[in-house]
Amino acid sequence: MAIRVFNTLSREIEEFVPARQGFAGMYLCGPTVYGEAHLGNARTAVAFDVARRWLVYRGLQVRFVSNVTDVGHITDGGLDEGRDRIGERAARERVEPMEIADRFFWKYFDEMAKLNVLRPDIAPRASGHIVEQIALVEELLGRGLAYEAEGSVYFRVAAWPGYGSLSRQAIDDLSVGTRALVAGQKHDRRDFALWKRAEPGHVQRWTSPWGEGFPGWHLECSAMALKYLGEGFDIHAGGLDLAFPHHEAEIAQAEGAGRRFARYWLHGNMLTVNGEKMSRSKGNFTTLAAFFAEHDPMLLRFLFVQSHYRSLAEISADTLAAARAGLERLRTTRRALADRIVAAPPGRDEGFDARTVAARAAFDDAMDDDFDTPRALASLFTYARELNGALAAPRDSLEPAARLFDDVGEGILGLFPEGATDVRAPDRLGAVMALLIDARAGYRKSRDFERADALRRGLAAAGIEIEDGRDGTSWRVRP
Amino acid sequence: MAIRVFNTLSREIEEFVPARQGFAGMYLCGPTVYGEAHLGNARTAVAFDVARRWLVYRGLQVRFVSNVTDVGHITDGGLDEGRDRIGERAARERVEPMEIADRFFWKYFDEMAKLNVLRPDIAPRASGHIVEQIALVEELLGRGLAYEAEGSVYFRVAAWPGYGSLSRQAIDDLSVGTRALVAGQKHDRRDFALWKRAEPGHVQRWTSPWGEGFPGWHLECSAMALKYLGEGFDIHAGGLDLAFPHHEAEIAQAEGAGRRFARYWLHGNMLTVNGEKMSRSKGNFTTLAAFFAEHDPMLLRFLFVQSHYRSLAEISADTLAAARAGLERLRTTRRALADRIVAAPPGRDEGFDARTVAARAAFDDAMDDDFDTPRALASLFTYARELNGALAAPRDSLEPAARLFDDVGEGILGLFPEGATDVRAPDRLGAVMALLIDARAGYRKSRDFERADALRRGLAAAGIEIEDGRDGTSWRVRP
Repeated sequence: MAIRVFNTLSREIEEFVPARQGFAGMYLCGPTVYGEAHLGNARTAVAFDVARRWLVYRGLQVRFVSNVTDVGHITDGGLDEGRDRIGERAARERVEPMEIADRFFWKYFDEMAKLNVLRPDIAPRASGHIVEQIALVEELLGRGLAYEAEGSVYFRVAAWPGYGSLSRQAIDDLSVGTRALVAGQKHDRRDFALWKRAEPGHVQRWTSPWGEGFPGWHLECSAMALKYLGEGFDIHAGGLDLAFPHHEAEIAQAEGAGRRFARYWLHGNMLTVNGEKMSRSKGNFTTLAAFFAEHDPMLLRFLFVQSHYRSLAEISADTLAAARAGLERLRTTRRALADRIVAAPPGRDEGFDARTVAARAAFDDAMDDDFDTPRALASLFTYARELNGALAAPRDSLEPAARLFDDVGEGILGLFPEGATDVRAPDRLGAVMALLIDARAGYRKSRDFERADALRRGLAAAGIEIEDGRDGTSWRVRP
Repeated sequence: MAIRVFNTLSREIEEFVPARQGFAGMYLCGPTVYGEAHLGNARTAVAFDVARRWLVYRGLQVRFVSNVTDVGHITDGGLDEGRDRIGERAARERVEPMEIADRFFWKYFDEMAKLNVLRPDIAPRASGHIVEQIALVEELLGRGLAYEAEGSVYFRVAAWPGYGSLSRQAIDDLSVGTRALVAGQKHDRRDFALWKRAEPGHVQRWTSPWGEGFPGWHLECSAMALKYLGEGFDIHAGGLDLAFPHHEAEIAQAEGAGRRFARYWLHGNMLTVNGEKMSRSKGNFTTLAAFFAEHDPMLLRFLFVQSHYRSLAEISADTLAAARAGLERLRTTRRALADRIVAAPPGRDEGFDARTVAARAAFDDAMDDDFDTPRALASLFTYARELNGALAAPRDSLEPAARLFDDVGEGILGLFPEGATDVRAPDRLGAVMALLIDARAGYRKSRDFERADALRRGLAAAGIEIEDGRDGTSWRVRP
């Protein structure tokens, strides 16, 4: 029952052996809070939410840390020469940068809650760990792996031979050109900022040994992962697009300072639209807010877990329709199961219990195998088909079946959150309305128009309009 | 249309004049995140949520800052010698202190959302502002208002004559006794910790000029309010129990360092149970989680706004029943209003429009007068009674009335959040069920048992059971 994961460091499936028995420390690169999150961001969050739930299910005490970047994300192609997204928006709206950060912080986590993504155990913020980041920079300066230049501090990539080992790039292949370098700043194009001097008018600034400034983007993750998970912690996860330069820089900063960093690196693949990666810069993104305005959030979660986290996933009208159908099948079985359990007293059918045990084993095997959610989901569908037969045979005890659905369908895949759009309440109204419309049709057929009209008036008083059309009678709740 | 507030500094009602025209900066002392919030905590939050909404309604651009204490709350009667609540719980549960802090951070804000309390514009955390706090301590040391003793730093109360002016206590009346002082630490019983040395085993610690330690509880509010609202900011709010020593210390720390602090101090009164203040230490508290398990959260909010924020409010079965009745009356009127607007095309009745204008003026007057919510609510009730007459007369235009309900009932008092227990959906099912049960009774009366039974079976399939009893037919949704 060992869990196996694909470790980007080795490019191999490895057995997951926690550093401390019974405990798993996991770090996930979280959002930069300067704007709306899009579906691609959500895919990474859901992928590692499922992985986290699986580690817990397997009996580990998990500490899940996921950072919030509320300062310093000023990269533009990794060159440290881009724009400060948070500061820029704050200036535009004439508010404090932290108001921008907090607004999108809440928005992000509210949207994650809609997707049934569990809150991190610790969600450390970059601006809240200036002391730790400055200490790390001082350590790197002391070891000759960094240098100061006009109030900024840069990591000296050429001095750290390990750089490039995660993303398997030879340092020498990285552009060394100095052409575009600003005089007196970076010595080498590959170097990256640990600390940036705050120009006049830059609001987010702190006093440091190098003058007033703010931390470079990569720095926070090294400092905060080490602080909350300790040296040699278990898992560092993130989107594949962060492997270089962000994760490479994280490793350099931590291990350059003599601290062993993450032992397993897990990367989630991208969400595509017409085969192209969904990203802010490409402009082909849909925000979560826009998606939720039209769709049940669980549809998106279902679509995500249908793919393996290391595969590309495509979002389109077709893949959404398929997800809708699949989710609805599972919901229907689960609802029927719940109704049958209430209706029938517990019985006993060893034969069906054995099928339940087998289904759980199949699910578990798939999840142990690098969190293979498509295979786990397939085992649940196979089981649901078997279950439909059992639901017709009133002698079976179905409590183990219901427990399986709860444990893995909601507990692991997170597809049936309480209070989510389980369409139970609307369906009930729908069923009752169908009966009422039948009754009214009966009255009309027997020319009892008084009763038929009384029904219509009664419904109108309850805020429900009915309309007789060519295809029968339809109804709608008045908006 | 000036807003008037009771300023604890002057003990008088004063006109509220923002420091910067069109802008209002407001700071509220928020939760210490080491355990469940109780109803008393919620009262303060709701009181100043309403005040904040009112400032926005009056056209001000409000920046609402409310802190989160995730380190340093080690007071026990203000003596700095109590226990570290977060560290203690972390040790007991064998987790990182920040896991405790984050767990209760999310829990608190989720509960506030249920109470329809808006999120702060900025919710700064004490642990996230160590740099700013250390800078403030250095300033106070430089001015001779603080002293170091064995790695801790204390504020020298005797050296700051302003101490006690908010709570109107003469410094000399405060206990000066040195009997219980630990040798080499505080010089004077009245002094309070700005920075505490971290004993071995204390997890939450940072490097400082005085060795490893952590900030004293009072310090964060001075540092963070000044950082995000600036000198001489408008409003500082909090529970009455914080006026001394917490707010007194905040003023001393900020003004002692030469920065003008808040200009208006607003204090919310306590929630009582059998006439006694609800508090954790008295053990007479109900957690929000326990309350929400049994009651609609809006009931609590309604109960709070029924009292003026500076008066005591009592919670009991009686006051809750009264709140339930009051809330239900408003909801009924609002629902009837919404239904009527859909049913009838817009008309025009200048007479009723004038009553709407008058009702809004009465509401506004009450709110301008130190946020007099009981009077504002009373004006809404008076208006609702008038409205019931208008609802019977189909020629009136009711859109202004609906807008008034939305603007002040939800916008200001926050009583009708979208998706809250507005019982609209269940009521609709109830109305349709009543029609269906009537239809079934008709079938039975005319001895059409086949149709009557078909209805029952149809309902059972939809998860609804009906039962014929002496008092007629009842129905329930199967759990």
